[in-house]
Amino acid sequence: MDEPIRIAVVGLGYWGPNLVRNINEYPGAEATVVCDLRADLLETMARRYPAVRATQSFSEVLSDPDVDAVVIATPVSKHHPMAAAALRAGKHVFVEKPLAASSDEAVDLIGLAERRERVLMPGHTFLYSPPVMMIRELIDSGELGEIYFISTSRVNLGLHQPDVSVAWDLGPHDFSILRYWLDETPAYASALSRGCVIPTIPDVAFINLEFPSGTVAHVELSWLAPSKLRRTTIVGSRKMIVYDDTSPEPVRIFDSGAVLPNPETFGEYKLTYRTGDIVSPRVEVAEPLYREIEDFCSAIRGERVPRSSSALGLEVVRMIEAVDASLESGGARIGVSTPARAAA
Amino acid sequence: MDEPIRIAVVGLGYWGPNLVRNINEYPGAEATVVCDLRADLLETMARRYPAVRATQSFSEVLSDPDVDAVVIATPVSKHHPMAAAALRAGKHVFVEKPLAASSDEAVDLIGLAERRERVLMPGHTFLYSPPVMMIRELIDSGELGEIYFISTSRVNLGLHQPDVSVAWDLGPHDFSILRYWLDETPAYASALSRGCVIPTIPDVAFINLEFPSGTVAHVELSWLAPSKLRRTTIVGSRKMIVYDDTSPEPVRIFDSGAVLPNPETFGEYKLTYRTGDIVSPRVEVAEPLYREIEDFCSAIRGERVPRSSSALGLEVVRMIEAVDASLESGGARIGVSTPARAAA
Amino acid sequence: MDEPIRIAVVGLGYWGPNLVRNINEYPGAEATVVCDLRADLLETMARRYPAVRATQSFSEVLSDPDVDAVVIATPVSKHHPMAAAALRAGKHVFVEKPLAASSDEAVDLIGLAERRERVLMPGHTFLYSPPVMMIRELIDSGELGEIYFISTSRVNLGLHQPDVSVAWDLGPHDFSILRYWLDETPAYASALSRGCVIPTIPDVAFINLEFPSGTVAHVELSWLAPSKLRRTTIVGSRKMIVYDDTSPEPVRIFDSGAVLPNPETFGEYKLTYRTGDIVSPRVEVAEPLYREIEDFCSAIRGERVPRSSSALGLEVVRMIEAVDASLESGGARIGVSTPARAAA
Amino acid sequence: MDEPIRIAVVGLGYWGPNLVRNINEYPGAEATVVCDLRADLLETMARRYPAVRATQSFSEVLSDPDVDAVVIATPVSKHHPMAAAALRAGKHVFVEKPLAASSDEAVDLIGLAERRERVLMPGHTFLYSPPVMMIRELIDSGELGEIYFISTSRVNLGLHQPDVSVAWDLGPHDFSILRYWLDETPAYASALSRGCVIPTIPDVAFINLEFPSGTVAHVELSWLAPSKLRRTTIVGSRKMIVYDDTSPEPVRIFDSGAVLPNPETFGEYKLTYRTGDIVSPRVEVAEPLYREIEDFCSAIRGERVPRSSSALGLEVVRMIEAVDASLESGGARIGVSTPARAAA
Repeated sequence: MDEPIRIAVVGLGYWGPNLVRNINEYPGAEATVVCDLRADLLETMARRYPAVRATQSFSEVLSDPDVDAVVIATPVSKHHPMAAAALRAGKHVFVEKPLAASSDEAVDLIGLAERRERVLMPGHTFLYSPPVMMIRELIDSGELGEIYFISTSRVNLGLHQPDVSVAWDLGPHDFSILRYWLDETPAYASALSRGCVIPTIPDVAFINLEFPSGTVAHVELSWLAPSKLRRTTIVGSRKMIVYDDTSPEPVRIFDSGAVLPNPETFGEYKLTYRTGDIVSPRVEVAEPLYREIEDFCSAIRGERVPRSSSALGLEVVRMIEAVDASLESGGARIGVSTPARAAA
Repeated sequence: MDEPIRIAVVGLGYWGPNLVRNINEYPGAEATVVCDLRADLLETMARRYPAVRATQSFSEVLSDPDVDAVVIATPVSKHHPMAAAALRAGKHVFVEKPLAASSDEAVDLIGLAERRERVLMPGHTFLYSPPVMMIRELIDSGELGEIYFISTSRVNLGLHQPDVSVAWDLGPHDFSILRYWLDETPAYASALSRGCVIPTIPDVAFINLEFPSGTVAHVELSWLAPSKLRRTTIVGSRKMIVYDDTSPEPVRIFDSGAVLPNPETFGEYKLTYRTGDIVSPRVEVAEPLYREIEDFCSAIRGERVPRSSSALGLEVVRMIEAVDASLESGGARIGVSTPARAAA
Repeated sequence: MDEPIRIAVVGLGYWGPNLVRNINEYPGAEATVVCDLRADLLETMARRYPAVRATQSFSEVLSDPDVDAVVIATPVSKHHPMAAAALRAGKHVFVEKPLAASSDEAVDLIGLAERRERVLMPGHTFLYSPPVMMIRELIDSGELGEIYFISTSRVNLGLHQPDVSVAWDLGPHDFSILRYWLDETPAYASALSRGCVIPTIPDVAFINLEFPSGTVAHVELSWLAPSKLRRTTIVGSRKMIVYDDTSPEPVRIFDSGAVLPNPETFGEYKLTYRTGDIVSPRVEVAEPLYREIEDFCSAIRGERVPRSSSALGLEVVRMIEAVDASLESGGARIGVSTPARAAA
Repeated sequence: MDEPIRIAVVGLGYWGPNLVRNINEYPGAEATVVCDLRADLLETMARRYPAVRATQSFSEVLSDPDVDAVVIATPVSKHHPMAAAALRAGKHVFVEKPLAASSDEAVDLIGLAERRERVLMPGHTFLYSPPVMMIRELIDSGELGEIYFISTSRVNLGLHQPDVSVAWDLGPHDFSILRYWLDETPAYASALSRGCVIPTIPDVAFINLEFPSGTVAHVELSWLAPSKLRRTTIVGSRKMIVYDDTSPEPVRIFDSGAVLPNPETFGEYKLTYRTGDIVSPRVEVAEPLYREIEDFCSAIRGERVPRSSSALGLEVVRMIEAVDASLESGGARIGVSTPARAAA
């Protein structure tokens, strides 16, 4: 096997330590440097990983010849400047989701990565989660038939962010999953939200998406909810799925549907309903973050475009921007512009 | 006690027989006539209730001096002509929800009832359901604090209607409940829907409502869903509620919320979260339809305006019309005009 | 088709009216007489079914030539005298479970029925419930492998009986189901119980059963419980089942188990575990009581021995007697004597 | 504060590493030595905790003057010899549950600890779990009334042990919890079990316990089950509790019960049932193992007898021995002898 890819992790808040742990568990990589301004967080990591160098200086990371790639797990506003600097320093870059704070920033990073021939990858971790992957395969194989609609709720009490809305915070999860499952970008978005606790910061949002194929999707996001809910319903013409990330049975397939015996004469004939078995397939247990690091390293080795590609990351940012534009215009239906082709 | 109110039930489909049964169980009323065009349904009722007269002629019902009130449980398109005829014949009228097929029709019926001094009452049965009533009291008493938002799902596999959309079929339930709980009419509605099985008949709808007080509501309705779901989440500034009509614990009160220690300085201070006890209060077991018939009869005796008033019924129709208008204009936010004052 | 079988229903408490309704719905039978000492119950039935004759006199029922069969839904202590009288009067007899208050009584009734060539059938309704029948087929087909053990809970708040223990009241359900599924009579029973509310009347019981094949079963019965629980777990060597009568998915099949790679060398090798798909098969919706009446009538027409046979009913009584004997001897393991062969 | 207590952890299988982590998190203690025969496990710990000394020699641990206390997390058969050696070497001793492989061994260890004036504590971790502690308080306060019965299930697919039965493996959890809640030792035990996968090793057991106060308990244990179940029902004369360790609402209090209006005349009067609110109280989130280590250290400092006392540990062993004796005698009811008084 090749030499392990040497990775610096910048930002040791919530995700940083998990990234360090998974990088060290993956045989094809090693965490060589951790970087944060907060000395106490550095110290904790140093104690846990004596072999990893700890620094408060990001420029030291950039100039370190022993660093092949940089993982950026800082607040969104820092994504563009830090990723750009790292790409310019010749490093491959993994950025926590969302890729950047605007599509302009994201386009800029993608161009930079292309020119420098470096990998740029956003951390849409859910694309590596076994239930999400299984559902993608079920949709792809045609087992569900035409996808009529998808309705999803991601709500919880907690984690208000002082600087971003709930759509910027939780939206990337569902937007990247929908993009991955349906393999198309929504044409339109519209949204209603409210800043309940802090009037200027939306903490609940109801988002509608319309896809070119006809599929519609509804996404409910909230930091204010009586209990944790992660429930996605996928209604196809042949089968339906309920996906719940918090359940011991995360994927449930319902062999149910409405049958239209003779479409021309509807009005005279009644629909019939089919209700069959419900199956909870065994879902492989695997840590998505590990798979994601593995995909990042494969991309660095030139083996493939990562599933969580920069092109997908740009589309996710464009979807959030469309949501913001809809909110600003009182809920109007806003076109989601198609990302630049070059980016894939 | 007064003489029992003599009631004719017109339309013996799904709701009709339940209405007859509850009318007969309520001591203050008796079902004297049943009317339907379908002879087999009449026969079934005749066998079950030998004392009830069965007829296929609606005009016979109207001219019957032994009929004080008429209950109309026919398709929506028949509500206005039949209710108008009954009011003109001097009968009190109970109409299954929605009150009429348009707000113009509803306004016309309300005017007619006023002029003839007869009771006109739409059958918004959920307003008589013990959990719905308990939640109204909890909101009224201030125990939940300010109502931030309400999100509700009413989905199921089945019962596509050939003539109406899912919003006209299922919407009256949630719209009447929201109107009753919040005691205000929404200012705006917007919606996304799709006709999945029959392209011209919307069978899934995502509806947003904005109320003058600031409360926002989201209503998901569908005839296509993997399993029955009746789940309403009410998020208040002090407490939250989950209401599920299908659960043995239909009302669950969560003593949880976000606390903003010092609103002026947010950005520097973090929100704290409060998670307290969860209580499933004992909810009285009572048949809503019985209570509804009782309320109708009290209104006939002049004792009170029914909880499910014609004014409320008109507002519900206006909410559905706003949803339709939004759908026609590609999801635009549509004002819900305030119903005529005279109607209450 | 033959003339409908004319049936008298004796005892109009909880089960009686349900039996009358199902007899009238089944085309091959009709309820001709209802009998109870309580005039108000008779009156209610008379109003509901004007064609049915109501009487307070059981001997009148017995001497009525228009009665082919008698359904007895009275307290257990009355089962033997009333069933014996009816058999002697030449009627076919259906007795609510348990068949009799002792195995001596049951044997006596079985002998009488044989001599008079009449059908004697106990009302073990669960044997006609679609989920119970589906599980019987799954066991029979070998899909579950060897049945290692079955554990079942039937608990609830309510319905203390003044005259019988919880084992006599609820035990017949589980004992008849186990007998039907496993197709064998337990060899031994042992039990622990307590009279919590009334010291002399056991209202909770923990019962162990050992079957000749090696299967063991545990049955928990109680009238005192925080919530209704009907949960049966069946653990086979190949698959496992959870059966819950109160769930929308009453049968769930788990393709899971422990695998012993090499039995001879256990101790050195570790067991491996297999966890596969979980399937909730679609279960037909049908009223068990209707099927039971149908089976009774088929037996009267000489077409077959009813699934809920008098032989099975006798075994159930013997199982309860063994439980009682165990309780009297401080929990000792008591042999369950095999019922007389002649009875099948 | 005093010097931290220096602790050696012997046995690095499942529990060992968790114990090391919690010892290091508790400010009043530090893990100074880890000991195991398996070099790879030692190495892993050495990498994780560079300051902790790793050794394969137990005698080295015993002779180390820098070790105040020894935590023993080895298979049950090693508990007595290792704990005895450690006590003789003057160390305080914490032994994973069960305390020893027989009551004779346990009595021997208790005597030795007394003579050497050292702490001997078994690791009944559940006694430090917040829901278990809350329920103890609810029982103590009388809020539940008289405890009629307790029924508990601890089942799961997995973790067959090659050397012990399911009663020795899982029984200590429930037996210690019951002992703690009820504050009394059971008078009698009886049991049924089966070795389903390996005939000589019982992997399912149904255990009955009778307490002097009249409370009865049923404990179902199994390594073979379709899904993880941890469900305990506590039925009191005033209230009932469902405790489920795997639920986000681990304690649910039901204000329900049966009411006997006039005990003298039962038979004439019917019982009435009370069904009130259900409350899921907020349960503190805390790691039980941390609390347990804290209690061990307090005991070493002479501040108190640990909640998980050696006397309780001996009683638990006696309960398992009574279960074994019952199994050997075909399910007979076996007296559980009271532990020596001196042990507390």
